[in-house]
Amino acid sequence: MVFEEVDLKARTLTINFASSKSSTVHIGQGILADPETWTFLNGTTQLALITNPTVRELYGELIQRVLPHNADVFEVNDGEEYKTLESYTALVDSLIRHQYKRNSSIVALGGGVIGDLAGFVAATYLRGVRLIQVPTTLLAQVDSSVGGKTAVNHIRGKNLIGAFHQPEHVVIDTTTLDSLPQRIYAEGLAEVVKYGVIDDAGLFCWIERNQEAILARDPRALQHAVTRSCEIKAKIVERDELESGVRMLLNFGHTYGHGIENAAGYGKLLHGEAVSIGMVLELELSVRLGLCSRDTADRVKRLLASLNLPTRLPNALAAQDIESAMQHDKKATDTQFRFVLVRNLGNAVADYVSDFGLIRAILMETS
Amino acid sequence: MVFEEVDLKARTLTINFASSKSSTVHIGQGILADPETWTFLNGTTQLALITNPTVRELYGELIQRVLPHNADVFEVNDGEEYKTLESYTALVDSLIRHQYKRNSSIVALGGGVIGDLAGFVAATYLRGVRLIQVPTTLLAQVDSSVGGKTAVNHIRGKNLIGAFHQPEHVVIDTTTLDSLPQRIYAEGLAEVVKYGVIDDAGLFCWIERNQEAILARDPRALQHAVTRSCEIKAKIVERDELESGVRMLLNFGHTYGHGIENAAGYGKLLHGEAVSIGMVLELELSVRLGLCSRDTADRVKRLLASLNLPTRLPNALAAQDIESAMQHDKKATDTQFRFVLVRNLGNAVADYVSDFGLIRAILMETS
Repeated sequence: MVFEEVDLKARTLTINFASSKSSTVHIGQGILADPETWTFLNGTTQLALITNPTVRELYGELIQRVLPHNADVFEVNDGEEYKTLESYTALVDSLIRHQYKRNSSIVALGGGVIGDLAGFVAATYLRGVRLIQVPTTLLAQVDSSVGGKTAVNHIRGKNLIGAFHQPEHVVIDTTTLDSLPQRIYAEGLAEVVKYGVIDDAGLFCWIERNQEAILARDPRALQHAVTRSCEIKAKIVERDELESGVRMLLNFGHTYGHGIENAAGYGKLLHGEAVSIGMVLELELSVRLGLCSRDTADRVKRLLASLNLPTRLPNALAAQDIESAMQHDKKATDTQFRFVLVRNLGNAVADYVSDFGLIRAILMETS
Repeated sequence: MVFEEVDLKARTLTINFASSKSSTVHIGQGILADPETWTFLNGTTQLALITNPTVRELYGELIQRVLPHNADVFEVNDGEEYKTLESYTALVDSLIRHQYKRNSSIVALGGGVIGDLAGFVAATYLRGVRLIQVPTTLLAQVDSSVGGKTAVNHIRGKNLIGAFHQPEHVVIDTTTLDSLPQRIYAEGLAEVVKYGVIDDAGLFCWIERNQEAILARDPRALQHAVTRSCEIKAKIVERDELESGVRMLLNFGHTYGHGIENAAGYGKLLHGEAVSIGMVLELELSVRLGLCSRDTADRVKRLLASLNLPTRLPNALAAQDIESAMQHDKKATDTQFRFVLVRNLGNAVADYVSDFGLIRAILMETS
């Protein structure tokens, strides 16, 4: 599909889980400001809006005007370094002080940090209250807001503490992407490319063909990239809510990526940037293991580079520090790492790799 | 059934949940020391034993001898006042420092505090690892170890932070009850009486008839009381894992009870003691609302008293403080409280009560 053919009408996806829960994902231009979007909140008695100062400045008033119930606003500082147990504790304390009850709703308005943190609060406050995700970055819209993963970081690693808690609704307004700084927009594209590589060669080719429109944030290009990404993620998490199988594919680029992100220190490399480098490294691993052709690996690398994403490790990063950080990740066991390996565009497999020498060599060569 | 007819052979109950998870409950005399009990841990690579100094002293060595894998022992101080986010954070830090992976197992060895706290760690560490409950108090054996509720307290209320996380196995050795101090044993009986009142008039009558054997901790009496309680709890949580319906019945005595426990300050009144008083108050509420006969209420109260359980509020407790604490509980909304009301022995119903005057009057009269 070329982007000219994309329908700009708002879309709704429903994700049904085995546990009888379901998530509804609303995608469209300008839907944040439309009171019709929020009718599912009718009857709410307590509404907590968790956000950061930057996003509040941009959308706080707008959203409070259209919500069917007054919201208490709780702010968290902006940045990955605040996705901590300390911020979590402060939010829980606030909800308790405001006597939030079990039938209250939490709206997470912001990027991945806000979504993960507010999501973990919703997962554990009174053993779980209703969660609505309102992602305002591309990364959060195509990835972290859908599927129910919530978490906070620990000094030793990303997302080491968390829970699965499905949002009842995800409200994705693609016009919020217009206000993103260039780097923040680009890091989201890394995850869109990821969907192409692991599941949908057609999506990958569409990105290749429409790079300019995508980089120009053409509304139709955004609508297609976000909708297709959410469709793929929805299909995968519906089959495997708790990541015991196929959902692991979504971690493509993240085994190296989390190690890189953590070793660099939060804020130095953005999550999507680390994943971009991680995908290049994991493609190299796939090539070395004889699964993937060099051509395919190069083709992905070229696309990432032309989307303004990094494809090499920063000079300042030592391979040893990355490997040590990888050891602390959820994807490591004592004797092996779980990787997503690519066979072809749209065809990937999760597997364990225990050849530490090879894993290290690839780190050394790419830095 | 009279207790002489109870079979002392070990029992196994399996609880199947809609989410396709299941819990296996093993109940028997001396099963803690039997290596056969622990074969489900074969193949485990990392095993964390979370316990407190008192329980470690009693069973630490014994259990470490029979476990099929070396366990790291992590201690938490003894007492409800340590069931906090601080203790939780310290445990998570320890697991991360020891590089515990996603395929590791957590064994909670102790009473309700250890089970709830270690359970919350297992629910959230790396978004959830395997949990084995080994309850050593009557309260934990008949109630808190089964059904997957995990939590920590907040200064403003009990269990305000937590998650549902089913233990894969629950190992209940009734010989551990021999070592319990009298008050700790008696508080567990409050929950056994609760099962009789809400679901099984036969169990209630059996307790009435066998009070002496129960108080003497006769092995057959213990086996029957624990097995029957677990069967009832299993039946209820299997139908309603996340407490959206019938599971609420298990909160009989807990609406007033949590308020009383919290207002008294942890450690003053034990949980089961507060629930005993709470049941008396909620029976009174049921009588005043015309649902229950005075005779039935008096009969339950007599049984609780003869099991050495309190049935009146301590003089030092102000009705106002209890009511204020109740407001912070999960069972409160802005305009009403959810109570479990009794119609007959074995027949109860969860309902909202908004007559704050009546709720308060009962508190005033019983103090």
